[in-house]
Amino acid sequence: MSKVIFEIEGGAPVTVECNPGDNLLELARRSNVAIDAPCSGNGSCGKCRVQLLEGEAESLKSRHISEEEWNAGWRLSCNTKVLGDLRVLVPDIASAYQSRMKTADLSTGKEVAIFEEMQENLKAAGVEFINDFMALDLQMEEPTLEDTMPDVERLTWAVKAAIEVEQVHIPFAVMSRMAKVLRENNFHVCVKGQHKGDKFECMELCAPEDTALIGCAIDIGTTTVTMVLMDLTTGKILAKGSSGNGQIRYGADVINRIIEQGRPGGRKKLQDAIIKETLNPILANLCASIGISARSILRLCIGSNTTMNHLLLGVDADPVRMEPYIPSFFGWEGLLAGDLKLTAHPLAPVSIAPNIGSYVGGDITAGTLASLIWDKDEMSLFIDLGTNGELVFGNRDFLMSCACSAGPAFEGGDISCGMRATDGAVEACTIDKETMEPTLEIIGNPGQKPVGICGSGIIDLISELFRCGIINARGLFDREGSRIRRDKHGSGRYVIAFEEESETGREISINEVDIDNFIRAKGAIFSAIETLLNSVDMTVELIDHVYVAGGIGSGINMRNAVNIGMFPDVELEKFSYIGNSSLTGAYAMCVSDPANEKCAEVAANMTYLELSTYPGYMDSFVAACFLPHTDASLFPNCLRED
Amino acid sequence: MSKVIFEIEGGAPVTVECNPGDNLLELARRSNVAIDAPCSGNGSCGKCRVQLLEGEAESLKSRHISEEEWNAGWRLSCNTKVLGDLRVLVPDIASAYQSRMKTADLSTGKEVAIFEEMQENLKAAGVEFINDFMALDLQMEEPTLEDTMPDVERLTWAVKAAIEVEQVHIPFAVMSRMAKVLRENNFHVCVKGQHKGDKFECMELCAPEDTALIGCAIDIGTTTVTMVLMDLTTGKILAKGSSGNGQIRYGADVINRIIEQGRPGGRKKLQDAIIKETLNPILANLCASIGISARSILRLCIGSNTTMNHLLLGVDADPVRMEPYIPSFFGWEGLLAGDLKLTAHPLAPVSIAPNIGSYVGGDITAGTLASLIWDKDEMSLFIDLGTNGELVFGNRDFLMSCACSAGPAFEGGDISCGMRATDGAVEACTIDKETMEPTLEIIGNPGQKPVGICGSGIIDLISELFRCGIINARGLFDREGSRIRRDKHGSGRYVIAFEEESETGREISINEVDIDNFIRAKGAIFSAIETLLNSVDMTVELIDHVYVAGGIGSGINMRNAVNIGMFPDVELEKFSYIGNSSLTGAYAMCVSDPANEKCAEVAANMTYLELSTYPGYMDSFVAACFLPHTDASLFPNCLRED
Repeated sequence: MSKVIFEIEGGAPVTVECNPGDNLLELARRSNVAIDAPCSGNGSCGKCRVQLLEGEAESLKSRHISEEEWNAGWRLSCNTKVLGDLRVLVPDIASAYQSRMKTADLSTGKEVAIFEEMQENLKAAGVEFINDFMALDLQMEEPTLEDTMPDVERLTWAVKAAIEVEQVHIPFAVMSRMAKVLRENNFHVCVKGQHKGDKFECMELCAPEDTALIGCAIDIGTTTVTMVLMDLTTGKILAKGSSGNGQIRYGADVINRIIEQGRPGGRKKLQDAIIKETLNPILANLCASIGISARSILRLCIGSNTTMNHLLLGVDADPVRMEPYIPSFFGWEGLLAGDLKLTAHPLAPVSIAPNIGSYVGGDITAGTLASLIWDKDEMSLFIDLGTNGELVFGNRDFLMSCACSAGPAFEGGDISCGMRATDGAVEACTIDKETMEPTLEIIGNPGQKPVGICGSGIIDLISELFRCGIINARGLFDREGSRIRRDKHGSGRYVIAFEEESETGREISINEVDIDNFIRAKGAIFSAIETLLNSVDMTVELIDHVYVAGGIGSGINMRNAVNIGMFPDVELEKFSYIGNSSLTGAYAMCVSDPANEKCAEVAANMTYLELSTYPGYMDSFVAACFLPHTDASLFPNCLRED
Repeated sequence: MSKVIFEIEGGAPVTVECNPGDNLLELARRSNVAIDAPCSGNGSCGKCRVQLLEGEAESLKSRHISEEEWNAGWRLSCNTKVLGDLRVLVPDIASAYQSRMKTADLSTGKEVAIFEEMQENLKAAGVEFINDFMALDLQMEEPTLEDTMPDVERLTWAVKAAIEVEQVHIPFAVMSRMAKVLRENNFHVCVKGQHKGDKFECMELCAPEDTALIGCAIDIGTTTVTMVLMDLTTGKILAKGSSGNGQIRYGADVINRIIEQGRPGGRKKLQDAIIKETLNPILANLCASIGISARSILRLCIGSNTTMNHLLLGVDADPVRMEPYIPSFFGWEGLLAGDLKLTAHPLAPVSIAPNIGSYVGGDITAGTLASLIWDKDEMSLFIDLGTNGELVFGNRDFLMSCACSAGPAFEGGDISCGMRATDGAVEACTIDKETMEPTLEIIGNPGQKPVGICGSGIIDLISELFRCGIINARGLFDREGSRIRRDKHGSGRYVIAFEEESETGREISINEVDIDNFIRAKGAIFSAIETLLNSVDMTVELIDHVYVAGGIGSGINMRNAVNIGMFPDVELEKFSYIGNSSLTGAYAMCVSDPANEKCAEVAANMTYLELSTYPGYMDSFVAACFLPHTDASLFPNCLRED
């Protein structure tokens, strides 16, 4: 047995035992040490850097580690074998996203405004914000020798006297505490439950003053989890919070997580990572912050992609990934918080927005609900840029959806200087055409130095490099200057921040390989749009609205996204950024039973197009892997200053 | 800390630590050492005898321990304090009932015949033996790229194709295993569940050959638990078993158990005693004996008194005992086997036959169902002689019920030589008037010597002593002879077995205190019958049938029971012994949905008479405390040979 000590920057060290030969990244995962590994440990992303401080290990060289860094002990943990006792430094940068992820979580006024506007639009579209949850104040007669009605019958009658129902269902959990609660409160109690048609389903029996009816809307993204608690009666938001998805240490994308869950004990491990390590801590925090008991949370609604909701339920997700790509469920009713041991009332129903296909999930259904594109005569395109890219196109008569695997580029994966949208990320930039000097907008407090660049920043950067003629249509460097450096083979890179300008003391730059990776990602999005439209015999000119959702930064510069050929070249006023539409939809499902039904209806009416087997998609993709496109006529408004 | 070693006759010793001053019976209970203590440790029954072998203890003297026994170290454990390290012998006789209780558990041909006749009668009365449990054989198409329906939808469609339903409900437990089970069985599976109207409730998804649909009927008596497993489709009995109720070490009667459950941790302790220590071992044994998985048990129906079903559910039973005597529930739907962690399918519904009042419970409702008295024009009296005595009187137009506290006499409590109906119990006897010599029928193998006398034997004995003029109407000894002995105060006793004739080497005799106790018990029964009839302006002449149920022996000599004034003096052919009617009713509820509904209907139509507050009951009781009664004209056929 060897002993490995992980010295975690800004945290307590973790000591674990292992066998010589064990993989260091694997060991970190087993030991709950967060190391960022978006590529799930295949050596391609270069994000899982650690520094060997002491001891024996064997690593492979990597293009992500310079000679100088190698000599200082830097290694990729994914290709490092433990040979004996070991002490390694785990940089804080790698785990920073976990607690400080900036995303569309209603933390800014702008996000809240978008969120509220969308709810108002839903109401205006005729979706009533009502639900069947109730808290009944029941004052019963205390039993006497003349009135010997038992507790269950007494309560049943009291409910029937308060509201018009034929059946009152009392579950075991309520039943078993009834004698005590009734007597402690002298038969004056609050009963919480659901009033369904001629039936009342009791969920909670408590003191008369405890009348809280709380709902919880959750967006479970592959990368980030966002949650709001609201008053189920008034719809008022009471608390909000977010954190990284704890599953991230098992891989950045859904494919790697599905592989991971297929290993022995994997399903349980991934389920624990999302429930015990992610959802429950946020739930507990939010409850504490507003001083309520978790038992007050009586309904949960979840927007999540197909893989995420399978992993949440602990259902084997392998069939999602393997041909013929069969999820266990699209829509499914009957889940209770207690089934998942969520920090909420165990009898609280958990509604998962229904999936459409293996790669278009409930997050898109919920987002589509929120976007209102199902209510319009005009043609709308809905784009959700998460870890995958998902698209929905249509109007009140039809809805087509598809997903494309853009890879992790929009979240900073596959880009050497890429990072998620956390502190230190360059989220926007412009370049002076003359001097080629950049002006950066960086996430964080004033004075924050750059650490890397996130999705929205990369879009700006590539658009600006292209506009200024620094790179050509194939993403290769065409100009020279102090910010342009080249390796021994002549391959160029643009330096965003020199060593002395960066937070880490390492140069931040984008090279031709990065740009090529990004062009493939944006090409996947554009060709998916083109193919989706093509499948219904439409062209981009016929698009009336484009709704862009997702959290790849606090927003996207639409002009730049069009400029690089990621989004279609339509009038800029047709674009709307609608934030975290999955959360918005989940919120509506929680507060509004009609929204919940509408969501199921939207899902039932949506057609899923499997892109990977659709004729012409690959050709379209290859043609889109240029700036802005091989067919420049598709982008008449492209800015290319000569 | 002191160390106490319980040397259990015929078992492994149990060693426990305790504090000096701890009560020895309490300590035995905490340590799961079975010591018979029908009076729950108040010193009155004298059953909790142990022999001090070594060490220090402090005990009170007791009329139950002779001088000679005291010197040999015999003590009542209920009044013994541990003073230091101790070694005590726990006689096997005390714990014998636990495994060898003889009761109406379908172990004899006669019992089975009664049981089967009652089921046939139910069918003849129009109660159809059908239920909504089904095992569907589903052969689905395997998914392909062209047929990408998810698992849940695929299964739902297959169920809808097999039976006519609109909704198919799939619970989480089925959902979470679905992907695996479907693929392991190449989409050819068996689905078990309940077909309720236009809905099918899935309960189990398994290999196509596993089609077992098993039901379980349970009678939970205060003293004994009896169970049968049956095929839910054919009704065939597959296995049967019984054992003592593990709660017995917390008191022989319901009052003492309610007191015990009210102590800290008591509810859990009593619930564990019935579920973990009693029901689950029998369930596991029965499943093993017929080679089925406990998951095949898909329905359970229980007949139990009000206290027993409250303790089973872990619901506070204190209000049952305390004025105004309010149970938590009469009827209540919604219990699942998983709620109680019963060894059965966790989703199996558990139906508890509804209670009528604090002391007339579901065992009586189930028994009344089985007795068919609700279907007759004639007037019937139903008597269940368990630890309490419960009565129902009426016909198809009305049903009146009441309970009387006969005390533990019928089960051998409060009688110095009394014992439960286990091996060694005298269960019947006659006495030669001339010689006063008894002829005994003893439970057990041929040659079994007597240990004590059980309820049916006591009825015979007192009737015979009275018939032969050995005792008078007040139960005092009137004759002398070799079998009549007197103490120094002149108080007499009749020796059933001399020292050398008994299994234990101790004299077995019945004394005037015992006889007085028994007369009070039989007086309680008779006065309850009289009061119940009186409450509806009826007299004994109007009784057409008397059904006697219960397990106080393998049967009762009705002639003798009338002779001592316990049962009314009606024609002997009006009496029928119907065995364990609670189990018979529970069986019918399990196999037949209509029986289940009928049981609820019977309960709803039954009126409960609270005897303790009914005017005239006490007078009636006092008048009945003679042999056969102070008003001899009520018993014209009484045998009293002069």
